[in-house]
Amino acid sequence: MKDMHSLLQHQFSELTKLARKFNCFYLTGLNKGICKPFIVGGHQVGLIRPDVMKHLQRFPEVFIVTGKFVELNPAFRGYKERTSKVADVLQTLRKENEICALKGWRDECFEVSTPLYHESLLEMDRSAICLFGIRNYGVSVNGYLTHPTKGLCIWLQQRSLTKQTWPGKWDCFVSGGLAVGYGILETAIKEAAEEASVVGELVKKLIPSGCVSFFFESERGLFPNTEYVYDLELPFDFIPQNADGEVETFELLTAEECIQRALSPQFKTTSAPVLLDFLIRKGYINPENEPHYRHIVELLHVPLQSIYNSPCTDITTNGDGK
Amino acid sequence: MKDMHSLLQHQFSELTKLARKFNCFYLTGLNKGICKPFIVGGHQVGLIRPDVMKHLQRFPEVFIVTGKFVELNPAFRGYKERTSKVADVLQTLRKENEICALKGWRDECFEVSTPLYHESLLEMDRSAICLFGIRNYGVSVNGYLTHPTKGLCIWLQQRSLTKQTWPGKWDCFVSGGLAVGYGILETAIKEAAEEASVVGELVKKLIPSGCVSFFFESERGLFPNTEYVYDLELPFDFIPQNADGEVETFELLTAEECIQRALSPQFKTTSAPVLLDFLIRKGYINPENEPHYRHIVELLHVPLQSIYNSPCTDITTNGDGK
Repeated sequence: MKDMHSLLQHQFSELTKLARKFNCFYLTGLNKGICKPFIVGGHQVGLIRPDVMKHLQRFPEVFIVTGKFVELNPAFRGYKERTSKVADVLQTLRKENEICALKGWRDECFEVSTPLYHESLLEMDRSAICLFGIRNYGVSVNGYLTHPTKGLCIWLQQRSLTKQTWPGKWDCFVSGGLAVGYGILETAIKEAAEEASVVGELVKKLIPSGCVSFFFESERGLFPNTEYVYDLELPFDFIPQNADGEVETFELLTAEECIQRALSPQFKTTSAPVLLDFLIRKGYINPENEPHYRHIVELLHVPLQSIYNSPCTDITTNGDGK
Repeated sequence: MKDMHSLLQHQFSELTKLARKFNCFYLTGLNKGICKPFIVGGHQVGLIRPDVMKHLQRFPEVFIVTGKFVELNPAFRGYKERTSKVADVLQTLRKENEICALKGWRDECFEVSTPLYHESLLEMDRSAICLFGIRNYGVSVNGYLTHPTKGLCIWLQQRSLTKQTWPGKWDCFVSGGLAVGYGILETAIKEAAEEASVVGELVKKLIPSGCVSFFFESERGLFPNTEYVYDLELPFDFIPQNADGEVETFELLTAEECIQRALSPQFKTTSAPVLLDFLIRKGYINPENEPHYRHIVELLHVPLQSIYNSPCTDITTNGDGK
């Protein structure tokens, strides 16, 4: 399978290659079978790589590592106890300074919940989510306008050079992770104000437009990400002003320039799905100009729900996992 | 797994139940393992149910039925020979009048192609596609307008009472299958003219807006469908006029009325994905009013590409299939 993939890779369009890049774990890593399901309260909430497993095995009173899965000790009952036990381990590992992802400690907690009903199980620092392959939720805003001569134009931001992840890379207009205690629209409104000074009447024009899901892997860890997408048509005279120091600069690009930017190594790989989805929904990327159109649309919506909730997973883990 | 599903079914929102209904094969049938991959030219192009297999077994010189798969005789070389051999079998079965799907013979051929590179393998009558579980492609147009007081309004069509499939049911504004020899945008333009008299300057406003994929099953067969979606903002004074006799009537509905219509038994189940996708992209269905928003978005883009191109399939079939 791998040989066929590499053989055919050169036949893919540039956009397809990009869609395969931000799904590198979905397309190759997932089927290698070297990651183990991470079980909390009887639910698979993540996947753990061997390099992380090696560290967790040192805490057998917290993480039960079997041949088939890693389980958070089921003796821990409730959100608070689970959160505190995991936090203790993470703080120990953080002090040892050996795990790349934990060097970017955020002091901002993300929630871990059950796959289908979003029952809260525990929370952990944002930097650790990728170590456990936990589903990660964020919001992104496409800020755009229709220029009389240039057509569809899109505001992009360059991330601050001091950001912990992807410093200096080009990114969507506005985006942010869903932190504990914040709603989805609420996060979009908060981030639009902080990152680009979109406030007042303007922020009321945010239109929820779907979500994209993909499964990326980097040295830091696994990223089964879902981004809730909002579109925002901006006035011609609006110039975004950053208010929280997390943005280096903003730039207004034509749709074609946006594609070239997204294809360049200067673009944050995990933000490309939002941009491609936007350009598809606006008709700029379409079946007439993109030979692998439906393949790309499929790669913008990979079945994370099914991956973490499959009958296979149930059979493998529930028997001895509870 | 099944018990859990039925137990939890009542907790789903009405829209989630609808999304699960048009994916009934994806969510339950697929994992039962009673359908066999259908192989043509070394590629899996479909899935065949036991009730169809029973008929195909009577033609061993055309269909090789093994324990693991059904293969079109690999001795047939090229598009024409494959097409003619399959057509002979279908004509025989059609005369016997025992297969429900073939009673709706269309005299319109759909193409069967390889999963990734769309290399043409053969064509067969549209009515037979669902017997072999072959991927089915169509176009759909969302005809809409933004009413000053009623907000988003959508034109729906009622299918003619004499249509071979889903007679009298409510459907999207305009839609049609991709027949052999027609392009995607070309089909959208042709169908918009025939079904609703959208022509001239108006048809130039068609905006390609993505595609939806789902996997439905009915008594007739299997429907792994992908619909290329176009949006068309219509003038207030435009009244659609049917030109080909395939439409009973048109009606302009508010977004809320559209949802109620889609949830009713009077709506064509396999057209609901296009409508839900439209209402999500327009922000009418959003994360604040739909608790299973991301689950629904996932069910509007199920991974048909992966299902018919999985390493599992390769391992199972290629060994003795070629």
